[in-house]
Amino acid sequence: MKSVKVLAPATIANLVCGFDILGLAINNPKDIMEVSLKDEPGIIIHHKDEHDLPTEPSRNVAGVALMSMLEEVKDAPGFEITIDKRIKPGSGLGSSAASAAGIVVAANHLLENRFSKDDLVRFAMAGEKLASGVKHADNIAPCILGGVTLIRCIFPLDIVKLTAPPMYVTVVHPQIEVKTSDARQILRKEVQLKNAIKQWGNIAGLVAGLMKNDYELIGRSLEDVIIEPVRSILIPGFDLIKKRCKEAGALGGGISGSGPSIFMLSKEESVARQLENIMTEIYLQLGIDFKTYVTTVNYEGVQVVS
Amino acid sequence: MKSVKVLAPATIANLVCGFDILGLAINNPKDIMEVSLKDEPGIIIHHKDEHDLPTEPSRNVAGVALMSMLEEVKDAPGFEITIDKRIKPGSGLGSSAASAAGIVVAANHLLENRFSKDDLVRFAMAGEKLASGVKHADNIAPCILGGVTLIRCIFPLDIVKLTAPPMYVTVVHPQIEVKTSDARQILRKEVQLKNAIKQWGNIAGLVAGLMKNDYELIGRSLEDVIIEPVRSILIPGFDLIKKRCKEAGALGGGISGSGPSIFMLSKEESVARQLENIMTEIYLQLGIDFKTYVTTVNYEGVQVVS
Repeated sequence: MKSVKVLAPATIANLVCGFDILGLAINNPKDIMEVSLKDEPGIIIHHKDEHDLPTEPSRNVAGVALMSMLEEVKDAPGFEITIDKRIKPGSGLGSSAASAAGIVVAANHLLENRFSKDDLVRFAMAGEKLASGVKHADNIAPCILGGVTLIRCIFPLDIVKLTAPPMYVTVVHPQIEVKTSDARQILRKEVQLKNAIKQWGNIAGLVAGLMKNDYELIGRSLEDVIIEPVRSILIPGFDLIKKRCKEAGALGGGISGSGPSIFMLSKEESVARQLENIMTEIYLQLGIDFKTYVTTVNYEGVQVVS
Repeated sequence: MKSVKVLAPATIANLVCGFDILGLAINNPKDIMEVSLKDEPGIIIHHKDEHDLPTEPSRNVAGVALMSMLEEVKDAPGFEITIDKRIKPGSGLGSSAASAAGIVVAANHLLENRFSKDDLVRFAMAGEKLASGVKHADNIAPCILGGVTLIRCIFPLDIVKLTAPPMYVTVVHPQIEVKTSDARQILRKEVQLKNAIKQWGNIAGLVAGLMKNDYELIGRSLEDVIIEPVRSILIPGFDLIKKRCKEAGALGGGISGSGPSIFMLSKEESVARQLENIMTEIYLQLGIDFKTYVTTVNYEGVQVVS
């Protein structure tokens, strides 16, 4: 039977100042998914990892995303999916988005690419909704499109792909649990206008910096006066890591998505590796298990490898 | 004695969704300023117009901006300034910014361009403070630099010049008074986070649209869910003008600065002229005196003409 293998990249939502609108795809970690068509309708899901995720399609992110696509396919075939999840659930690195984005790209490939990328984002968002209770696209869009994406508007969906210069990305994932729903609940529903103005100055600066390849402007704009001050309390060592990484030459960085992972951007690999050392040192001292990644911007999104 | 003549363009602050951070220079109207050096220190100001603005330097926007510059000049010469103000004070078209920006560019030219453009913005902001009570730069920056400018941050000042495609700008200035201080006071000090998110999606979209020359994206992003719903109440006919202009093909538009002028952007001159007709018709019906302009983006800022 026809089958395909795809790699679905981890993603960093928000990019510090762009809460709910910006996202960035990175080259490591990546989920591996193998998807085959089968004659009888129905979806079968296997896991090759140890995350103990549900395999029942209606309770699985990839399953729900695929079902959402198949609603628009006449005489849909069946699918058998094997997921090797390398992006740990709950890491803040877009684990559920990778499942949702990976399956819709794979299935679309098997169905002769009948759907547009905007359609794929829409189907994958149904999967995200299962994971977080909210239909959001700030991980889905960069996972499918690669690079940096802007969700200008969610209803109706308006996704804008932004250019971005090559950058190194250092990530640390402290092995603690921060639930997306908790991270959302602690946010205040109102913000001060003067802080909102600071935030949109930084967002505009970040977009301009990315599009002009102006690393200094990117660095100056990576400041979040609204979300980070509240959410960072949930992440031990956050302030110290940020301070020391910036002193060591990071352009800037912050919480990845709703955490607990922390990411830092830099222009040079040597700096990126030094940031990994700083993160390692701090979490060793704190006695918290962690995993680090030194990687780069992923420009292609979910990749069909065979 | 050495003398210079400069043209200082009108400017549109905020650009709908970029409250306090974005501004755009336009080619009409423009103030005309003639500035001469004189041997004896001191500043003499003449007005060639009928706006009855103060001529005492410490009470005149151009005077205050120039004094702010001269604080950093050893053995400063004297200046004689003649202002022909074509940008009506209180129009929302950056009238005071044009005075402040025009004089500092003229004086810097006479002082052999010893100051950078960032310095000039800083001096001119002192003049703006006299006019509005607040040191802001969203009219000053585009007036000096031309095109579209972003004030990423006001303290410390961080100005980013953005590229922008050619556009037509239709402006109507209803001859009613809206004080900047009143227009600021009616704003709520807190905004809903969900509205702030919509706003920063639009700001990011507008910056990306301007830099990509994507007229449709510019149009979709010209939406303000925070300031306009409050301020537009002060401007008779606003909702109807906006609705009819968009139906007629305007990319979008809104309040210029804190009003009362309304501006609309369009890609084609024919559309821009049609928008002028719509604005004319509506204000004739309302029985409010008004003035219209059909102009283009000014890319050079304050211009030294002789």
